[in-house]
Amino acid sequence: MPTDNQEMFIQCAISTWEQQIKRTTAIFDRLTEEELFEEIAPGKNRVVYLLGHLAAVHDMMLPLLGLGERQYPFLDAAFITTADRAVADLPKVEELKGYWNSVNELLLQKFRALKPGEWLQKHTAVSDEDFVKEPHRNRFNVLLGRTAHLSYHLGQLALLKK
Amino acid sequence: MPTDNQEMFIQCAISTWEQQIKRTTAIFDRLTEEELFEEIAPGKNRVVYLLGHLAAVHDMMLPLLGLGERQYPFLDAAFITTADRAVADLPKVEELKGYWNSVNELLLQKFRALKPGEWLQKHTAVSDEDFVKEPHRNRFNVLLGRTAHLSYHLGQLALLKK
Repeated sequence: MPTDNQEMFIQCAISTWEQQIKRTTAIFDRLTEEELFEEIAPGKNRVVYLLGHLAAVHDMMLPLLGLGERQYPFLDAAFITTADRAVADLPKVEELKGYWNSVNELLLQKFRALKPGEWLQKHTAVSDEDFVKEPHRNRFNVLLGRTAHLSYHLGQLALLKK
Repeated sequence: MPTDNQEMFIQCAISTWEQQIKRTTAIFDRLTEEELFEEIAPGKNRVVYLLGHLAAVHDMMLPLLGLGERQYPFLDAAFITTADRAVADLPKVEELKGYWNSVNELLLQKFRALKPGEWLQKHTAVSDEDFVKEPHRNRFNVLLGRTAHLSYHLGQLALLKK
């Protein structure tokens, strides 16, 4: 039970994040190996690309939020800096699912340890000078933005429902 | 500039909501009348359905958040309680866009007037008894959940990009 209002705002945001993670993971787990290589729509990204992309974006949240080092920086070449199919040699699907689950567990653990005031500290991609003028560029804002990013791709993955 | 931490959490959440609204509106405004009747993917919802659906869901937030009466309850028959194409006679696209813009403006105005403590009050779909046990069923949580819902459909609309 939160001890004050600030903790309740944070608890709601972490809980919304968790819900989206669970729904997305349920889709990845439900699809067959073959379906993971299907496109979400004709000519669009394959599911496996979104899996690697989301794992990489969440991994990038560790240094962005000042919560630790990247765990899987090698994902960027195939899933961040290039479009789907630009890199032919992808990690195995089971490996990607492992990265996805591990990075999300690690983030959640770190999220739960942050105090309300720490959520409002600047993220690492903004300078001290800019943060004075733009105090919304804080960790909490990153959490909300990345939740929106996840929901965006979840909506695309949901199109695969037969 | 927020006067305290609580206001900053709320400002970040409203700002994330606004960003998703702007991105979604930009897609609706960019598409031609013909494109608005295209499917987001083969056999899936048409854009016009998502436009009406999102307008109706946002309209429902007014009573859900205790912020006012429904403005467009007549949208539910075609966009909430039935799937796309179940109702043949839809409002004109320009009318739907008008509802979408108006309800979002009204919501934003109401959001900005709420005090931090009011964001943590229960929404109207939860009883007093349940709210004691589940204090996260508050207005703020509805805002975060509806932002995720909007991002989910925005991701689908973005697939129409040529």
